[in-house]
Amino acid sequence: IAKEVAKLLEMKAQLGEDEGKHKFVLKTPKGTRDYGPKQMAIRERAFNAIISCFKRHGAEVIDTPVFELKETLTGKYGEDSKLIYDLKDQGGELLSLRYDLTVPFARYLAMNKITNIKRYHIAKVYRRDNPAMTRGRYREFYQCDFDIAGQFDPMIPDAECLKIVHEILSDLQLGDFIIKVNDRRILDGMFAVCGVPDSKFRTICSSVDKLDKVPWEEVRSEMVGEKGLSPEAADRIGEYVQLHGGLDLVERLLQDPKLSQNKLAKEGLGDMKLLFEYLTLFGITEKISFDLSLARGLDYYTGVIFEAVLLHQENEHVEEAVSVGSVAGGGRYDGLVGMFDPKGRKVPCVGVSIGIERIFSILEQRLEASEEKIRTTETQVLVASAQKKLLEERLKLISELWDGGIKAEMLYKKNPKLLNQLQYCEDTGIPLVAIVGEQELKDGVVKLRIVATREEINVRRESLVEEIRIRTSQC
Amino acid sequence: IAKEVAKLLEMKAQLGEDEGKHKFVLKTPKGTRDYGPKQMAIRERAFNAIISCFKRHGAEVIDTPVFELKETLTGKYGEDSKLIYDLKDQGGELLSLRYDLTVPFARYLAMNKITNIKRYHIAKVYRRDNPAMTRGRYREFYQCDFDIAGQFDPMIPDAECLKIVHEILSDLQLGDFIIKVNDRRILDGMFAVCGVPDSKFRTICSSVDKLDKVPWEEVRSEMVGEKGLSPEAADRIGEYVQLHGGLDLVERLLQDPKLSQNKLAKEGLGDMKLLFEYLTLFGITEKISFDLSLARGLDYYTGVIFEAVLLHQENEHVEEAVSVGSVAGGGRYDGLVGMFDPKGRKVPCVGVSIGIERIFSILEQRLEASEEKIRTTETQVLVASAQKKLLEERLKLISELWDGGIKAEMLYKKNPKLLNQLQYCEDTGIPLVAIVGEQELKDGVVKLRIVATREEINVRRESLVEEIRIRTSQC
Repeated sequence: IAKEVAKLLEMKAQLGEDEGKHKFVLKTPKGTRDYGPKQMAIRERAFNAIISCFKRHGAEVIDTPVFELKETLTGKYGEDSKLIYDLKDQGGELLSLRYDLTVPFARYLAMNKITNIKRYHIAKVYRRDNPAMTRGRYREFYQCDFDIAGQFDPMIPDAECLKIVHEILSDLQLGDFIIKVNDRRILDGMFAVCGVPDSKFRTICSSVDKLDKVPWEEVRSEMVGEKGLSPEAADRIGEYVQLHGGLDLVERLLQDPKLSQNKLAKEGLGDMKLLFEYLTLFGITEKISFDLSLARGLDYYTGVIFEAVLLHQENEHVEEAVSVGSVAGGGRYDGLVGMFDPKGRKVPCVGVSIGIERIFSILEQRLEASEEKIRTTETQVLVASAQKKLLEERLKLISELWDGGIKAEMLYKKNPKLLNQLQYCEDTGIPLVAIVGEQELKDGVVKLRIVATREEINVRRESLVEEIRIRTSQC
Repeated sequence: IAKEVAKLLEMKAQLGEDEGKHKFVLKTPKGTRDYGPKQMAIRERAFNAIISCFKRHGAEVIDTPVFELKETLTGKYGEDSKLIYDLKDQGGELLSLRYDLTVPFARYLAMNKITNIKRYHIAKVYRRDNPAMTRGRYREFYQCDFDIAGQFDPMIPDAECLKIVHEILSDLQLGDFIIKVNDRRILDGMFAVCGVPDSKFRTICSSVDKLDKVPWEEVRSEMVGEKGLSPEAADRIGEYVQLHGGLDLVERLLQDPKLSQNKLAKEGLGDMKLLFEYLTLFGITEKISFDLSLARGLDYYTGVIFEAVLLHQENEHVEEAVSVGSVAGGGRYDGLVGMFDPKGRKVPCVGVSIGIERIFSILEQRLEASEEKIRTTETQVLVASAQKKLLEERLKLISELWDGGIKAEMLYKKNPKLLNQLQYCEDTGIPLVAIVGEQELKDGVVKLRIVATREEINVRRESLVEEIRIRTSQC
């Protein structure tokens, strides 16, 4: 119903537009937002934490175009493909906006015949999804991806990806979180032993993927009603997908009479055991939950998959903690690069994507709730004058400061009042004022005022740059 | 002809695609490129120089969506509008990719009722132009914009924009450059006194804008032939547009019997004089050329306009120096915000845009020509082992280092050879190796090897983080 109402409202809006052509709507496109200086300052903090972590793990950085050939994206996203933004055919190639950074990465590897790289990529991606902006769900949003491509010994890079998620979420202090892990091979093995026909694996996997948002009963009726699965098979799946735990669960399932007979599931469970071993060495198993309901909708995953969710902090009982949404996810995709290579050569890959928008939402709300005043510039000094007719002198002085590498501002007025100049420093957090006056010019000095203490000292003009540098490195 | 051939080739390519559906072309869209780790390292250098400068001048930073409502861009770019990328109509709003950062900035100001801001914005913009990638002309490219919005005393912010261009181009050491300046009011006044009808101002201005690429004769025949201007008017324009100089030219034109009678031209020339005064205080007039042929095609400029071009360095005679293309441009646009405001309230703005792609091209070519080896990671230490079966110990040690904030890597192999591990350091420039072995584990130490000198020392495990920090802050 909500969808239908939204559609009707949109149609109404469009009709409204046609009606009065001059009623120009002053807004950003649906599902997008501007970032003002304050939001940018918050964004920078989050990016810095993430980039530091990626660099700590030795990653290089790459960038790709915001759009790709339409066919590059075709057949990579399963049922989500309908959410891809296409560009209008204006002659020439057919293009689409990128839907994630993983497919462009695979295209990049195949195109440049790279078989071995550890890289990060931070950029915007586009999905024609239903936005829920207060919860940080947008149509244009940043992804921060870290991926390791190459043929290596099993689960070592996979474990590093989980370590990275753990480091970033801990560093950003977003509250308690849990990282769910599963494996596509375990899922596929489970589907097989539950009696799902091969041809239905992907679509049933998409249904399971909804379990974090809708209850099992709804997912079950989708499987049986829409997707034609037998009720018995659905019920068998229902028993598995409620399981979650740690290494103990892995061991138990390795003994499961049905699963242990399935080659794929056995491989997946063996690797899961190895993964837990490595995560124990990293000391992070406390936050890891092996969860058979985790599916991840995208078609391209072939091995380990994972997703980090924040837990409600208000709730005292951890048992009943409600997830406020996924903030990171990823997995292994060993076949994707091969889909692009003319000879089908595979490059095994595993990677993680940090969903920064929800993290922004949380940091933004937190900052608004706090009294912290965030500076949006780094200006060290305001060049001011106490008397009139000193514009030329201010211009000369500020030019000297800029050339000396000092971050300096002045008011763009011929004869600003000293009070207004000091007020500007208070408002924007500028710590110093360099004041020129007739007497100072005669004496070859500049009066330097420390805004916080109102102290004023005369500084010889030739030492001013050095003096400002010293004073602002202290504060 | 070149255009027609390109069209035919494109048609042929499309036919080819339809013919064999499986002939997937592995490429980025026309006019776009990937940035690999090396290019990114160069890009970062250039961005850092530019961002430092913008921050030195006290700018805040904002970001806007990559697409805007189509109507937001309508009527802002004159004849260039045909180069805008539209998105496909998939239901909902009609969208276009941003063509520059100036129009989104004006939309942002009007939408948030901001009347006073100094901001920078670094982001990609999109133009369906004919790409010339070797010369750094792309369909997707970065712009680095700095703008000052607000009602201020004349020419102070305008002069700061020119100072910024001068600082950035000097800092990047791109060779000799010149910044051409003109004023839309001088151009319009000139058109008026030359006998151009009011209705033809904009289109004739577009023709003049081509003078940096094509000779006067061609521009003249476009004016007379295509645009229906009288030959006499064209010839009168021809006389003015060959003028360029400094303050002396401004003074001369203020005495020009025709121009001095025109109100607009007089205003523009008066402000130009003031601008030169301020630029003298900034000490940068040497690189400034008042040039009556500078037009800038965009519709929205209302006052000062400017463009920086690099001069050929090989050429000994500065007089005959050939411009290798514009690397920065901008101007005053006092009416643009008012076009978005429901009540038409104006916010005067002036700004500059740095065309970073051409700068990249130059830096890239220069780096390739030099022998300089550029590092693409910041890894401080490789965690290695000399013996087999030490994967677990390496994982434990690297985890300690990561948690201590050290940038560390290891090879993703169970039993890597020491030689391969050392080779990896050589290849990627990692300065240190932390080697774990049976003996070291017993003694509670780690062997730290300095790659450059091959020196090896034993470091107590609990001091390792500190030791690495000290050693890598030195180099």
